[in-house]
Order: sequence, then C-alpha cells, then structure tokens
Amino acid sequence: MRTGIATVCLSGTLKEKMQACAIAGFDGIEIFEQDLVTTPLAPEDVRKMAADLGLTLDLYQPFRDFDSVPEDLLAANLRRAGAKFRLMSRLGMDTILVCSNVATASIDSDDLRAEQLGRLAELAGDHGVKVAYEALAWGKYVNDYEHAHRLVDAVDHPNLGTCLDSFHILSRDWDTAPIEAFSPEKIFFVQVADAPKLSLDVLSWSRHYRVFPGEGQFELAKFMGHVVRAGYTGPVSLEVFNDVFRQSDVERTAVDAMRSLIWLEEQSAKWLESNAPVLSAAGAAGAVAGGPAAPGRRRYPMELATLPQVAEPAGYNFAEVKAVDTAGLETVLGQLGFGFNGRHRTKDVQLWTMGHARVIVNEAAPGSVGAPAIAALGFDVDSPVIASARAQQLKAPVVPRKSQANEEVFQGFAAPDSTEIFLCQGSPDGTAAWTHEFGEGLEVPAADEPAVIDHVNLAQPWQHFDEAVLFYTSALALQPQPFAEVPSPTGLVRSQVMLTEDRSVRLVLNLAPLIQQDGASTSDRSGHRTTYQEHIAFAVDDLVATARACQARGLEFLQIPANYYEDLDARFGLEPDFLATLQELNLLYDFDTDGEFLHFYTATVGSVFFEMVERRGGYDGYGAPNAPVRHAVQYDHQQRRNA
Amino acid sequence: MRTGIATVCLSGTLKEKMQACAIAGFDGIEIFEQDLVTTPLAPEDVRKMAADLGLTLDLYQPFRDFDSVPEDLLAANLRRAGAKFRLMSRLGMDTILVCSNVATASIDSDDLRAEQLGRLAELAGDHGVKVAYEALAWGKYVNDYEHAHRLVDAVDHPNLGTCLDSFHILSRDWDTAPIEAFSPEKIFFVQVADAPKLSLDVLSWSRHYRVFPGEGQFELAKFMGHVVRAGYTGPVSLEVFNDVFRQSDVERTAVDAMRSLIWLEEQSAKWLESNAPVLSAAGAAGAVAGGPAAPGRRRYPMELATLPQVAEPAGYNFAEVKAVDTAGLETVLGQLGFGFNGRHRTKDVQLWTMGHARVIVNEAAPGSVGAPAIAALGFDVDSPVIASARAQQLKAPVVPRKSQANEEVFQGFAAPDSTEIFLCQGSPDGTAAWTHEFGEGLEVPAADEPAVIDHVNLAQPWQHFDEAVLFYTSALALQPQPFAEVPSPTGLVRSQVMLTEDRSVRLVLNLAPLIQQDGASTSDRSGHRTTYQEHIAFAVDDLVATARACQARGLEFLQIPANYYEDLDARFGLEPDFLATLQELNLLYDFDTDGEFLHFYTATVGSVFFEMVERRGGYDGYGAPNAPVRHAVQYDHQQRRNA
Repeated sequence: MRTGIATVCLSGTLKEKMQACAIAGFDGIEIFEQDLVTTPLAPEDVRKMAADLGLTLDLYQPFRDFDSVPEDLLAANLRRAGAKFRLMSRLGMDTILVCSNVATASIDSDDLRAEQLGRLAELAGDHGVKVAYEALAWGKYVNDYEHAHRLVDAVDHPNLGTCLDSFHILSRDWDTAPIEAFSPEKIFFVQVADAPKLSLDVLSWSRHYRVFPGEGQFELAKFMGHVVRAGYTGPVSLEVFNDVFRQSDVERTAVDAMRSLIWLEEQSAKWLESNAPVLSAAGAAGAVAGGPAAPGRRRYPMELATLPQVAEPAGYNFAEVKAVDTAGLETVLGQLGFGFNGRHRTKDVQLWTMGHARVIVNEAAPGSVGAPAIAALGFDVDSPVIASARAQQLKAPVVPRKSQANEEVFQGFAAPDSTEIFLCQGSPDGTAAWTHEFGEGLEVPAADEPAVIDHVNLAQPWQHFDEAVLFYTSALALQPQPFAEVPSPTGLVRSQVMLTEDRSVRLVLNLAPLIQQDGASTSDRSGHRTTYQEHIAFAVDDLVATARACQARGLEFLQIPANYYEDLDARFGLEPDFLATLQELNLLYDFDTDGEFLHFYTATVGSVFFEMVERRGGYDGYGAPNAPVRHAVQYDHQQRRNA
Repeated sequence: MRTGIATVCLSGTLKEKMQACAIAGFDGIEIFEQDLVTTPLAPEDVRKMAADLGLTLDLYQPFRDFDSVPEDLLAANLRRAGAKFRLMSRLGMDTILVCSNVATASIDSDDLRAEQLGRLAELAGDHGVKVAYEALAWGKYVNDYEHAHRLVDAVDHPNLGTCLDSFHILSRDWDTAPIEAFSPEKIFFVQVADAPKLSLDVLSWSRHYRVFPGEGQFELAKFMGHVVRAGYTGPVSLEVFNDVFRQSDVERTAVDAMRSLIWLEEQSAKWLESNAPVLSAAGAAGAVAGGPAAPGRRRYPMELATLPQVAEPAGYNFAEVKAVDTAGLETVLGQLGFGFNGRHRTKDVQLWTMGHARVIVNEAAPGSVGAPAIAALGFDVDSPVIASARAQQLKAPVVPRKSQANEEVFQGFAAPDSTEIFLCQGSPDGTAAWTHEFGEGLEVPAADEPAVIDHVNLAQPWQHFDEAVLFYTSALALQPQPFAEVPSPTGLVRSQVMLTEDRSVRLVLNLAPLIQQDGASTSDRSGHRTTYQEHIAFAVDDLVATARACQARGLEFLQIPANYYEDLDARFGLEPDFLATLQELNLLYDFDTDGEFLHFYTATVGSVFFEMVERRGGYDGYGAPNAPVRHAVQYDHQQRRNA
C-alpha cells in the first residue's frame, strides 16, 4: 500500500511538514494549496526538496467551486485552473483534486456538469494533468460519491477520474460496497480520515474533528476493503483536519499518522480475509476470472503488508512507581498489605507484592524526577519478542531495559504520555520469572491474598490523547470503550477506558483539564509538573476485610464526606448496617444491573495514589458516579497543602 | 432584579464557589447536588456560611427522572425525594428543581404525569418544599416548557410550579411570548443561559457550550421581557455549563457572570421599553387594569435597574505600546511616517503621531515588562465620566492613570486580557487635548497625512475569550460580529471582530493556539510570554504612495512569498502593472463585492507589529484570506530567530 498524507494534517511550514513526513516514512504527500501559497520556497525548490527527501508529490489540492456555474464564471474558473495546471507542471505534479461546488453553484444539471467537467478534463489533458473529482459531503448539488462517479463516467475522459474520501462518504452513511464496481482506472485518488461519531453539522465536523484511522469510529477497514477490491493501486492518503494536530509537534503527529496507516493496512487485509466479496468477479478487478473470488488479500492488485500478530495481553505483570524519596510509597504499600520482596541485585529498585499484584518502587537518582509518579507498566504477553517487533513496526519508540547477565531482558517502548511499557513473558500460574532477581528469591503466590492489578489510570497530555488511543489499540491490542466525562473542581475530565476482551487488562486514559487555577498551568507528564493525579487499583475478594486490615495498619484513607453517604442512601436505600460500614471505612459504592462495586482510595503520595476495589457479580465499570467525590476531596487536600 | 447563579457554573469547591459569588455580588445561589455531595461541609455549615456571606440559597438541583414511570419506580422516586426534602430542610432551602424524565420514563400519559407530580407536590408540601418542574430540551416525553406548564396547571397544587430555563426554551426555538400568560405565582424559578448557535445535538450543546448572557446568540432580552411581563419577581439565575468556565479562576468567572446579569437586566428593560406587550392586560400581571399596558418597565412587579448610558465610542484616541528598550519601536514608527511629538513632561512616555493616529511609546522600567507589547488603548467617548461609571457598575477593574496637577485624568479600566482601556474626551476636529502635556506643544493635525487607527488586534487568553466579548459589548458598546477562523502554522486562530456601527472603532480579538511546538506552551498576555503577535493597523488614503515613502525611509516590510502573487493572479486576474506593484512593495490585496483592500505589514518588534491599510469602496473586512500568509511568514521568521 502506498502511503500518503496531506500537508494540512500537520503544523509548521511546508518545509517542516515535508521533513517530518519523510522521517515518518511516508511514500508521498498531498500539497495543500495554502501551504504552497505561504511558503517562501519556489515551486521548483519544493519539487527538488521532495525528490531529495524521497517523497512523491501525489496530489495538489483543493481546487474549489468549479462546476454547475454559468458560462462567464466557467470561463474564469478555467482560467484559474489553467494557472494551477502551469504551477503543477513546475512542481512536477500530475493530479489535482477538484471538489464539488459549494459556494458558487447555481445550475443543477448533470448534463451541464458533465459538459463543464469535460472542458476541464480537456484543458487538464493539454497540461498532462489528471483531475480527481470529489463529492464534498456538503456540496450544493453533488454530495454523494456515486453521483460524482456517474459524472466521471458520463464525461469518459482519460484525464478525469474520481477521488474517494472516507470522511465525505462515511459521515453521510453512504454504503461503500458500490465502490467495488468502479473501474480502478477511474479512481484517481483515495483519501482516508476517521472521526468520532458526532451529531454536528458535517462541515464543522469535517474541519475540526477528523482524526487518524483507528482514533475514531468509522468503519475504515471495510471502506478500504471495497477500494482494494475495486482494484485501486494508488496512494492511500490521510486528509485529517484536526484542531489539535494542527498545533502539535509536527514530527510526532507525522509518526502518529504513519502508525494509523500501517494499522489500517493490517485491518483492511483482515477485513478482506474475513469478508467474501459482495460483487461478482466482474466487478472485482484483479480477482481470478471464472467465479466469485475466494477471500484472501493476495488476489488483489494492491499489496497489503502484514504485521507480527499478537493476542491481547493476559494481564498486568507489574506497575512501576518512581521517586527520589520512596519512603512515602513504601509506607502506603506496607499499610495496604503489600509485602516487601527485596531489592534488585543490580538496580536501585524494590519489589513489593500482594498476591499477583507486583509493584516496583524505583529509587530514582536525586534530581532525575519530581514527586512520585507512575513510570512504567509491564504486561504479560504470549511472546515478548513478537509483540516488541509489532510495536516497533508501528513506530513505538524503543526503551530497552538495562540488564546484566542472567537477568531477564524486557522488551519495552514509550507510550505517547512517556510511560514506559514493558512486554513480559506471562506464566500460567501468574508468577513472574524475573522476581528471582530480587533479594528474597522466587516469589511465592500468597494463597490468602489473591490481589491483582485491576486497572491503572494514567493522565494524558491533551495534545496526545488521540495518539494514545491508537497506540494502545494497535501496539497492545487493547480495545477502546466509549469515553466518559467526569466533573472535577478544575473542569471536566475525559476518561477513556482501554481493555482486553476478558478484562484482565483495564487501562484508563484520563485527559485532565489544562488549568488548575488562573495562570497556574499544568503540563504533560514528561515535564513532571502535572497536578492531575494517577493511580493503580488493586482488586481483592473482600474489600471490607481488606479495609479493616489496612485501617489496623494505620493507612490514611481518602476521607469521604458524610453528604456522600446520605446521597448514597437516598439513591440506593442500602441496609443501615452496610451503609454504616461503608461510611466507617470511607468505602465508596456503586450498583448497576451487572453487579456491585466497592472501593476506597489512599491519600496521595506525590502525584500517585492507590485504590482497592471489589467487583461483585458482573460489575464492569470503575465507580464513575463516585469519581467527582474523589476529585473534590483530592482537590480540597491539594488546596490545603498549597495554602 | 434578584440575581442568582448555579454553583455548577464555577470551578473549585463549594466553599470557594460561595465565596466567589458573594464577592461578585450575587443575591443568591442554586446548589448543584454534586457540589453538596462532594463537600466536607455539613448541610448546616453550608446554610450558615451562606447566611454569613449574605447569599440566599434559592434552588436545590437537579432532581432527575421522576415522572412517567411505573408505580414501583414511583415509590422509589418518592422515597428519594423525601430524603432530599429532609436535606433541604437542614440547608434551609425551600425550592427544588425537578426536570422532566429522560432516562426512566416509560409511560407517556399526561394524566399519569399529573397524578405523579401531584403526589410529589403533596409530599413536598409536607416538608414545606416547592417543586419547580422544568422541561428539559431532550426530555423523553416532556421537552416543551408550555407542556410542563400545562402539567403544573393540571395539578394545581400550591407546592408545584414551573422553572423556565432559557437554554431549554431557546435551543428548541420555542416561541417565548406565551410566557406572558403564565400566572406569576406558578413560575417558581427562572434560569438564564446564552449559547452560540450550533448545529449540535442539544444535550452536548447544553452540557459544554452554554455561555453567560451577552456571550452567545440567544434573544435573552426578549425572553426576559416576557418573563417580566408575566409578573415574575423571583431570582433570575445563571445556569451555564461551560467547559472553559469550569476550569477557569472562580472569582473571575463569578464577576464575568455577574456582569452578564447586570447587562441582561439593562437589555431587558430596553426591550420592554421598545416592545409593546403582545398579550392583553389580563395576561400581564401588574399592569394597570383597563386596557393594554403602555410600554415602560415601571409597570411590572420586577424592578429592573438601569446603568449609565453611553453611545459607542467615536474613535480611537491613542494606542500605547510598552517596552523597556523602545529603540526598535521608535525606528519603525519613524519609518512608517510617524512624527515624534515629544516626551511627556512628567512621565516616561513619548508621543508619536501621523494625522490623527497617535501612538504612545511607554518607556517601561527595566524588568517590568518583557518584549514590546500593546499595553493600552484610548477611546474617544462623549463623556468619560459617564462611561467610566457604567464600566464600574459592570465591575470593570479600575486602573486610574497617574497624573499631576493640570494634566488630564484618564478614566480607565483593565480589559479581561489585561490591556488597559482609557476613556478620553473626544473633540470634533479629531485632536486630543492631552497632547499639550508633551514637549512639542499642542498637536496640529497634518492635513496631508490623514492617517487614523483602523483597527487593533489583541491576543486573548483562551480562558477569557467569552468574557472579553461581553466586556467590550457591555462596557464599551462595541458589537460582536460573526467570528472567523484563520489557519496558521501553529493551529487555527479564532478571530472575533468587535466594532461600532459606523466602523470608527474596529477591535479584533484573536484566540491564538495554545502551543507553539511540543511542550513549548505560550501563555496569556499578563504572563508576558505570549508568542502570538498583536498589532495596530493604520488607515491611509493611498497605500502605494505610503508604502513607497516607507520603503524610502528604510522600513523592513514583512516579505510576502512570490507564490502568493501567482495565486492572487489566478484568483483575481489583476492588471499586470498593478500586480507587479503589489509584489514589488510586499502589499497584500483582497477584493469582495463591497470593495478592495490593500495592506502591508512591518516586521515584528518584540510581540508587536504594525499594519498599513487602504480601504477602497465599501470594503469592510480585514483581508482575512491573506492572514494565513502573514501567519506563515511571521512563524518562519520566528523559527529562524529561535534557531
């Protein structure tokens, strides 16, 4: 699959964008007109720079408001087109995007449109240019890709074809199956964009909220499957208008974009393998003649590369917390019931365990980090080597774990929020082989404390939130759930759960409000200045007993207001004894049709706190109705600490 | 008019919110349930604190999903209501908001609803509570305020009334005139919110994008006019769910909120004065019996306070630029054709003039400010004293200009972005009396240089953008225009023009992208770290001649790429000589059906640059199509400076 990206997806100057696209490994780019108009580079310089960078210049765009106009306006439009065709010749480009008229269309006639597009194709032919005509979702008369294609067919000129843009098609819920019947030589270009499903006017949706494939909710693999079946072999190019990407670091965004295409390529191949063609072989160019094509990607002219295949992780292997002064963390872990399993024989890290829940306490060098924070997560996978190879093909930045002879080498990479993710060899009994590297010898599962890591909650920098969703989806095979929004005293917190089918891994990505109070900005985690707190939650079988034991060990619980318990009673009508126990132990409670949820929080150490949970029945949530209470109490503590 | 605000409008803890509301001068507040549930304060403490702060507790809210349910669910709902009524008794509150059922309604029968609401009213009566029933815009069966009111009428119980929320009514485009026919004793509560007109599902619109009155596009004065005519005398309370306000400084937001109600009160009185009642006197409670009420606010039971009245400003009196090292500014002003009119006799400021365009260069003390920046704007008004009184009633923070004997005392206040705004006595011939305080004596208008300040472009901190719109609307009588979005290499810039009817004052508020590149955050102007550049534009009669003169004086123009002129030619087909002149002088050009626009920019000094413009015909814009070119070139310069 030839990969491409429109320069409008990225921040910076044209030069910076081109460099970033080359670094990220794109085959080619679309030049967005505004980027050319505003660059000090001459067209010839752009052409040379692209060639030097190994980038093809695949599409010049957009050319707007051409068709469905009176003759005098058509003449002006043809003059305008001529100027752009000459410019393209200087750029060495041969394809231009012409989108259906929005602003100046005044005559609704397909005959007239065909005639006018024919004249444009004629002029384009004189300049050796191919016109890719696209139906904008909000085009005045042409807003349906099949309509655009019928016009192309009617004109039947070698210099006129169609451009298929997944946003314009899927935002309108058009069926994509008819694409398969298109002649591949008439599909001049394919643009892909994903988007969250929004009930917003389609123009605003398109201009602000597009995301890269895998970051939204469109069925892009299916769209691409139909395109591949049609026999298209040209570039598959990203055109993503997104307010955040436009103001984020250009090189990171380009890598995020490339990752999305690599992932889409794999997903498209999978879709093709598991979906029989919907059309006869006649419509599926490249398929073997003589009957319906059998499933399988090798039958189509477009080659789709594969990735190393991984199953979803089997569970958390460990969570690592880092601090210069680890005393506070050690105290809390001990009070929670964790046992100290010794120090690593060569590294300044401690191992704390409770059942199969393992926490590594990393004694950081002074000055290297700020307050205690979550630094790394280990996941049990079938094959760390394969999973690491997949992650690297998906352009995950590698962070090898330093190790001595006879020590386990962890394969690892950095997540978009800079948390280090390590791939560990899982074992059937839930133990971890590397624990023998710690002083106390091989870990012995404590049968009486069947605790596990239930979920981990990470704060995400606002400019990398969508990137993080795609990252965990593609590299770690976690599935994004519908997001929730939770009020806090400093604003709404967007909460995105990523999980495995069997719920053995639950990861919660939180996009916290940007500003604490006027002028006091927070920052992303890499800057170690975040004021949004992260946490690790452990699941136990009997939370009340655990809480009592923790209380006996002197744990400082997050204090839950009395008003909360009154409201709980009003909402659920709980047994008085049970309610009294909850209140006495500062436990929170939730109930839904699947089951019940009991949990409590510790006080915060640095920017980390811990949670203990008990899931009863099939409860699958995280106590979201209680999150505002936690936020408010934590905020209150923070304000008092700052005062 | 009694003023109120829901605690959900603000950031922080309940205690912080209450303090901020008291400081801002609200009469009362609505307690949003989540704020009570999450506070460590006992209900009795909340009651006492409110009393100590002089705040009434006007409404407890929300109570959700009560009506249209089967009997078993009704029993649970009544139990839940009883708990809340007892809580309200401890809070000393007598009114609760019950909104129409969204989630659990399953029986669509007005008879059943009336019966169920009747039972709720009966229970409320036992606790001395009044139930204000509100139709949510997305209520399952009840989503129309007249429907809710018919139910209230049908129940006819003294403890059941209606709550009118402007968002739920105006977002659905319901006619507000029928409100006048409501019995005032059945309107238990009135909530006001404004909003921009969005094509978004109404729930998302409501939960994220509400703004304070005057910051959106709803016809709130008309809504309030009908409410006042109905004879309502209770609180007019803000209920504004806004993602930005929720994460902004609580005291500033509370003042912004209060300003919006003060302004709404005035606008409502004006609407009543200029609109005759639409209903007969019988429906207009409080009107004099015996015929239709004459226009005039004194006829209605609700008293509406007035503000000092001001006309829109007649023009810019001056613009002030501040720097520790003013050499760069002086050079550019001289090259632009400004004359140095001397130093102030007691202050470290210089006066530069060109025609009626006056620029004050403030020589700041070392360390007091960073790079050169726009510090103040002076506006010509009929009466600075009256205008200042109005601004102060609208809670504008006063910034008196220090002055000696015999010097003009400027009335001034700080705008939300911290720019100082001064009110000056205009003169019919466009001169300014204060200029005699400068060394060169009284200013003599230069007849051959009829330059004026055309517009000023200020960067706005993202968290105070809506506040700024209301501020300039209410305090300075400027009118907001529909906003535009301009692409820049660092993201989209939201551009909001505020102007006077006669265009003698044009002020452009720009909400710039937050992040320059990854991790390199900009900040608001008060932090003096903004990288978004601001500018002052001067209008002249013959821009080509001015540009040639500037060129001769050695001015460094912003260099416009050659590609821009090719595109200009493709778009407009300009005369070759004219196009050559534009390109030679780095002039930009725009054309629309109203006229033509020529302009150029200077290089940037600190965070300030200047623009010279010529408006031909009735051109009323700002060359928006050229803004991306400016942004790209400025960004490129900045990158090279930083490299």
